[in-house]
Amino acid sequence: MGFACVDHHRQIRRGLPEVIYCPGKTTEQIIKIFSNLAEKGNNVLATRAEENVFVSLVRTRKFRNVRYEKAAKAIVLEQKKIKSSKSVIPIVTAGTADLPIAAEAKVTAEIMGQRTKLICDVGVAGLHRLLGHTQQLQNANVIIVIAGMEGALASVVGGLVSCPVIAVPTSIGTGASFGGIAALLTMLNSCASGVTVVNIDNGFSAGVTAALINRKIEVKK
Amino acid sequence: MGFACVDHHRQIRRGLPEVIYCPGKTTEQIIKIFSNLAEKGNNVLATRAEENVFVSLVRTRKFRNVRYEKAAKAIVLEQKKIKSSKSVIPIVTAGTADLPIAAEAKVTAEIMGQRTKLICDVGVAGLHRLLGHTQQLQNANVIIVIAGMEGALASVVGGLVSCPVIAVPTSIGTGASFGGIAALLTMLNSCASGVTVVNIDNGFSAGVTAALINRKIEVKK
Amino acid sequence: MGFACVDHHRQIRRGLPEVIYCPGKTTEQIIKIFSNLAEKGNNVLATRAEENVFVSLVRTRKFRNVRYEKAAKAIVLEQKKIKSSKSVIPIVTAGTADLPIAAEAKVTAEIMGQRTKLICDVGVAGLHRLLGHTQQLQNANVIIVIAGMEGALASVVGGLVSCPVIAVPTSIGTGASFGGIAALLTMLNSCASGVTVVNIDNGFSAGVTAALINRKIEVKK
Amino acid sequence: MGFACVDHHRQIRRGLPEVIYCPGKTTEQIIKIFSNLAEKGNNVLATRAEENVFVSLVRTRKFRNVRYEKAAKAIVLEQKKIKSSKSVIPIVTAGTADLPIAAEAKVTAEIMGQRTKLICDVGVAGLHRLLGHTQQLQNANVIIVIAGMEGALASVVGGLVSCPVIAVPTSIGTGASFGGIAALLTMLNSCASGVTVVNIDNGFSAGVTAALINRKIEVKK
Amino acid sequence: MGFACVDHHRQIRRGLPEVIYCPGKTTEQIIKIFSNLAEKGNNVLATRAEENVFVSLVRTRKFRNVRYEKAAKAIVLEQKKIKSSKSVIPIVTAGTADLPIAAEAKVTAEIMGQRTKLICDVGVAGLHRLLGHTQQLQNANVIIVIAGMEGALASVVGGLVSCPVIAVPTSIGTGASFGGIAALLTMLNSCASGVTVVNIDNGFSAGVTAALINRKIEVKK
Amino acid sequence: MGFACVDHHRQIRRGLPEVIYCPGKTTEQIIKIFSNLAEKGNNVLATRAEENVFVSLVRTRKFRNVRYEKAAKAIVLEQKKIKSSKSVIPIVTAGTADLPIAAEAKVTAEIMGQRTKLICDVGVAGLHRLLGHTQQLQNANVIIVIAGMEGALASVVGGLVSCPVIAVPTSIGTGASFGGIAALLTMLNSCASGVTVVNIDNGFSAGVTAALINRKIEVKK
Amino acid sequence: MGFACVDHHRQIRRGLPEVIYCPGKTTEQIIKIFSNLAEKGNNVLATRAEENVFVSLVRTRKFRNVRYEKAAKAIVLEQKKIKSSKSVIPIVTAGTADLPIAAEAKVTAEIMGQRTKLICDVGVAGLHRLLGHTQQLQNANVIIVIAGMEGALASVVGGLVSCPVIAVPTSIGTGASFGGIAALLTMLNSCASGVTVVNIDNGFSAGVTAALINRKIEVKK
Amino acid sequence: MGFACVDHHRQIRRGLPEVIYCPGKTTEQIIKIFSNLAEKGNNVLATRAEENVFVSLVRTRKFRNVRYEKAAKAIVLEQKKIKSSKSVIPIVTAGTADLPIAAEAKVTAEIMGQRTKLICDVGVAGLHRLLGHTQQLQNANVIIVIAGMEGALASVVGGLVSCPVIAVPTSIGTGASFGGIAALLTMLNSCASGVTVVNIDNGFSAGVTAALINRKIEVKK
Repeated sequence: MGFACVDHHRQIRRGLPEVIYCPGKTTEQIIKIFSNLAEKGNNVLATRAEENVFVSLVRTRKFRNVRYEKAAKAIVLEQKKIKSSKSVIPIVTAGTADLPIAAEAKVTAEIMGQRTKLICDVGVAGLHRLLGHTQQLQNANVIIVIAGMEGALASVVGGLVSCPVIAVPTSIGTGASFGGIAALLTMLNSCASGVTVVNIDNGFSAGVTAALINRKIEVKK
Repeated sequence: MGFACVDHHRQIRRGLPEVIYCPGKTTEQIIKIFSNLAEKGNNVLATRAEENVFVSLVRTRKFRNVRYEKAAKAIVLEQKKIKSSKSVIPIVTAGTADLPIAAEAKVTAEIMGQRTKLICDVGVAGLHRLLGHTQQLQNANVIIVIAGMEGALASVVGGLVSCPVIAVPTSIGTGASFGGIAALLTMLNSCASGVTVVNIDNGFSAGVTAALINRKIEVKK
Repeated sequence: MGFACVDHHRQIRRGLPEVIYCPGKTTEQIIKIFSNLAEKGNNVLATRAEENVFVSLVRTRKFRNVRYEKAAKAIVLEQKKIKSSKSVIPIVTAGTADLPIAAEAKVTAEIMGQRTKLICDVGVAGLHRLLGHTQQLQNANVIIVIAGMEGALASVVGGLVSCPVIAVPTSIGTGASFGGIAALLTMLNSCASGVTVVNIDNGFSAGVTAALINRKIEVKK
Repeated sequence: MGFACVDHHRQIRRGLPEVIYCPGKTTEQIIKIFSNLAEKGNNVLATRAEENVFVSLVRTRKFRNVRYEKAAKAIVLEQKKIKSSKSVIPIVTAGTADLPIAAEAKVTAEIMGQRTKLICDVGVAGLHRLLGHTQQLQNANVIIVIAGMEGALASVVGGLVSCPVIAVPTSIGTGASFGGIAALLTMLNSCASGVTVVNIDNGFSAGVTAALINRKIEVKK
Repeated sequence: MGFACVDHHRQIRRGLPEVIYCPGKTTEQIIKIFSNLAEKGNNVLATRAEENVFVSLVRTRKFRNVRYEKAAKAIVLEQKKIKSSKSVIPIVTAGTADLPIAAEAKVTAEIMGQRTKLICDVGVAGLHRLLGHTQQLQNANVIIVIAGMEGALASVVGGLVSCPVIAVPTSIGTGASFGGIAALLTMLNSCASGVTVVNIDNGFSAGVTAALINRKIEVKK
Repeated sequence: MGFACVDHHRQIRRGLPEVIYCPGKTTEQIIKIFSNLAEKGNNVLATRAEENVFVSLVRTRKFRNVRYEKAAKAIVLEQKKIKSSKSVIPIVTAGTADLPIAAEAKVTAEIMGQRTKLICDVGVAGLHRLLGHTQQLQNANVIIVIAGMEGALASVVGGLVSCPVIAVPTSIGTGASFGGIAALLTMLNSCASGVTVVNIDNGFSAGVTAALINRKIEVKK
Repeated sequence: MGFACVDHHRQIRRGLPEVIYCPGKTTEQIIKIFSNLAEKGNNVLATRAEENVFVSLVRTRKFRNVRYEKAAKAIVLEQKKIKSSKSVIPIVTAGTADLPIAAEAKVTAEIMGQRTKLICDVGVAGLHRLLGHTQQLQNANVIIVIAGMEGALASVVGGLVSCPVIAVPTSIGTGASFGGIAALLTMLNSCASGVTVVNIDNGFSAGVTAALINRKIEVKK
Repeated sequence: MGFACVDHHRQIRRGLPEVIYCPGKTTEQIIKIFSNLAEKGNNVLATRAEENVFVSLVRTRKFRNVRYEKAAKAIVLEQKKIKSSKSVIPIVTAGTADLPIAAEAKVTAEIMGQRTKLICDVGVAGLHRLLGHTQQLQNANVIIVIAGMEGALASVVGGLVSCPVIAVPTSIGTGASFGGIAALLTMLNSCASGVTVVNIDNGFSAGVTAALINRKIEVKK
């Protein structure tokens, strides 16, 4: 296509859905890549997509069942049936404003066959809200923790459980949160074992990694 | 003295002890300033003092009862009796390595007449250690929280109590702790109400501020 | 509510009003949280609220006496009578452009029962403007100092008084003020004793902390 | 112990060895904590330990079989038999200078029962060195990738496999590597799916997380 | 002209086209400089030009054959015939979103007489896409590599070839890409020999430098 | 006025015009301060003023001869005659895009009675443009040098003359110019003697300082 | 000399002493450059010189009257008589620890014929110490202000006087002073007119610039 | 060898000497790698080598003709005859303190067969020193420019010539030079065409790249 080198082996090799990261691409380019990917019959996920891109896709009338996940800003095309995981991946957020990132993690994990459970607005300044979910967290194979501002939630969750915790710093905050740097540093410096970190606001990467881990666990090698 | 402009009104005006911040001053300068301050019969505190400065001070044979607080790296001269506060200021640390900063806060608050209580090594990665002290924290008029690495302890303590919390980020940590920047940002971005922050490793400032607050409270206006 | 975990114990436990921090929340979410909080009969404060959120709240016709503090961008619902403090908390600003942050601190302290006094545009480049207020400042139990650009005002005020000073750096400034970082660093490095710092532009946090301190002082333990 | 709050539930709760992070602690403190932990019969790991701390430990004559892993700067006490994993965790480094961090990851994973395989000096500037290990990497359940300087190895490995990759930026490099910031940012921005990141030089955290993941996989839930 | 000091010797002295960097200049200023440069009969390139500037230029009816390269945001006036190079300069991009920068490099190199070949969307997370172009890259005299996010492509290309590689970090990315800083640092820290770096998004500078090098090679001294 | 503390002694004490820095002030506030200052019959300068503020000022019909300097975004009210300096202050810019900052410096110096001479677009990449002005520069009492991007012009000018050079970094540039940080650092690190620096884009401060210096020189003490 | 290109025209052209900046040069190189400069009979100043360099210079027995200014770490050779200025340049420091930088400014200004007056330890946290010097400051033609930590002294002095103020940030401070960055930013953002800034700890540059300004004033053009 | 994966194809594939970057490697590791590389009869260069490593190498008595370039901190083993280039690569430095980096560039270029010419101490604050070399610079095929502090030399040289300029920022400087960041940013933002940049202090990379370019030019394709 000139502007894009589509990688059809990727879905087989890595067990990933076909994914388009939309920022920096024109609507025209996105539609062409989307079409190219969809033709093989695979499931397709377009992340960080503005709603007008979705509208343009629908207008092509080429994609049945394509849908727009508004909170996540994701376009989803399910053409192949997705088999659900047995266990549930908790997606825990510190505040209501972290929801769009949680939604991106959720839609990503789900298109990879994972069941998820959103535990929302349980930041560390009111610990009892989080502690009420302790059992659910300790049952998980892997947990996604999403927090902006001081980002302390990942450490606290990490201290409660014995599974890996994927921490997503968000750009929520003002002043010295520096667009998520504060939360990022907090999470990188976590004293709790088993906490690893992805890029600021990168719900997608957290969703993929959590799914990769849980798949390995459920399909024991 | 040429190199220093000693401010004798300060003890009266601000109710502070005479204080010398040692870094960047020669031993000779410190001894001259110390002598000048001590002559008025006031209590004197020299912070961030190397032990050899203390030895040189002792050798002058001018100061009875001068002592060196090794953990705090502080030289203390008590010439005036200090009246003790009724309430106790908890000084809470996330880890063992934060102790020198806690010691500086402690010696500072004590020379200002405050009783203190050290609660050590109760970082957020093992919440139950902290939660065992909840009652003690909720009884306080003001609390000092000291933490390096991710610095999340201030937010968690702040969420448990209704008094002001003075947060001290420390330079303890490696890599992306950036000499205390990570903890500093965490504390500045705290979602918990009532948390204010002092400079990295500034146990002295936390001790002074906590003492100023508690004095005002005990000597109701 | 799914997207928010409202904490009704907080008002009792911490003596705080119910507070909603609006950025990152949709208008719909804010209204739902606001309604949920208001139902218990408590006072509610929504900070950083755009005027159109207020208009939407009014249109619900559910909240009598709700008002919009434009300078502070705060929505205030007073349902319970607030008892006024005896003493006054001075809120001092370096420049006219710092007023929105001062307004946020003011509305916050007031909903917590504090009387406040605004001392405006007394930056250090014209010291006589500040020195005229010395007596008023020395009478206070706690002072809020708000400054952008070089943020030097906190140190100068801190040197004049013997009470705690809560310093709020603001994002006012250009070039190397870096959105408030210059003022933040100035305040963190203050040589004056008793100065603690909150996040850039965080008038709310300054207002809460000043109120917590003054309450403790007036209601002597 | 005053200076430390040992958490004996942790080994049970989180399935972790007893761990002491040495920097900032005095030799005396380390020995006391080590003794306290060892008394319960558990395995103990002390990380970032200078060799003289080990010598002091040995001199106490209390710990049979304690050993010093020089490359990793780790003290290891194996009192309980460790059961070995079936699968092997590859630990891949970009350069020879990254070996100390790899050694820390290795000793950590091993005390948690994991078998490991070191693949050393396979940085991206000579791709054929890495590509020779492709099969081994694709067989793994989880991979640790360690790189300083530009840190690009994590992305390249991530693109070759379908398992989670734990990326460890190291402080190896000069000039604009900024003590590992360059590698850290590279890894956080990785385009390859499944890559998560730990703190600069934090081989310990990578080892723990990889072990937690592989345990979950081998002990299918 | 008062606001600009046009340098007509430059084209002769340095063998460069006349170039106008548009940001910060008013449309009126650009047109005057453009006219001044065009009068001498030389080729003119205006970079980072908004389309409305081009429209205003066309409306002057003074410039035949002036054209707008939309992807590159460049205005090109070819008045002198440009002689083509024998060899081709590969311009390699990591992703589709890097295309505007590639386009700027391309139009710049071409107005300096260089033939170019765009190799697009061959980022390191799918190595086989790049490796298919190995022969073409090894035949080149100089290569331009353009990448945002983690910017690792320059190192990988640099390791495959023995010619100089000019690396252009782009501002493509989110969160901790920090507007291109991550890619910039990656490229500056490249372990591959022969990699030099230009400013973030500076396709123009890469195009000029590649052209200067290839000219020297083709016109052997 | 509540929101502003106007300092009428300033014009006498410091020999400055009355100045209003507009950002962060409402139009209403600016008009009130402007009126208050103008009433005393002094000259008034409002910097960084949007054109609509000027329009609003004009509509009040209170200020004869008020004018808007568009390039400088300054409102100027000359009510008192300004006596001109004998010597001329050169204002040297590296590029055309630095003109707005030069214009601010110019209008500021002029309202303080200084004659100025703009030397524009003489950046170091084409030295002969600058060297043509050497004589003029060597005749000056003080020089203002304004440059963005790499900001090297201040060092080169500083090396040519024996008078003080006031360097103004500008935010002109892209990528790693970081909004003027690159130029700021260049200027702070200048090897040329006599170069001092003001804030990024602060033409006002450069104008004032140059005027203060030249006044002192012409009115020999 | 191969390693250095000595510029003998400089003393005439710029009216500067011969100056050697020592860091990064070997003792051997410094002695050769020093000898080369001294041969012409001019005065020579070597800054940031370790005492052992001075000892080595003395051992050559080539330089009569060479002396070492210990506080300033400067080597001074006065061969030509220096004519003293009529007016005095105040050098004001915030703290005792800023003295080495003040000493460098002083020795530099003096070798350029300026009389200086040190006003030491008058930081803004105790304003009355500074205000006692107001008259002396208001009589000056130019003032040097030296401060570390929060660096607020420059703004306060700048607000008291109508002459130019040269601000020198120092690296004195801990934690978030970041080696002088805090003071540098404070000074760059100063609201007081007439304040310009030199590099962190650059007493030399402040001394030169103050001397250049005062010379121009005393030798009215 | 376990700790290193030696790449013997590299010398053939990329026309590079065998190179060992020493930092982070133990002396024992360096000797083993050195021996392994030397056995094939190739030339070997070890950069950033402490002198004691060289002494240890000599003691093995395995390497005839191995020599230590002290200024460059490089160990050189020439076993194969190196054919000299016809043209000369100028290596230009701003100051004497930049010489170690220049020496590294020189030894690197020379082992790759390039003749070099050192032009030293010609920083921009004394332009006439540089301008005296104009002809020599304009004759070059490629130039290396090395500068610390403000790093402006690269732009000035770039403006004088029509060949590519490789700019090396050095860590020479104090305060706001931030270990070379100031010079790095200056060079990245250079307005002069044809300037590309390598890492701070990376004389090696500059030497390699200049050699690669000049080889291509002399062996016209």
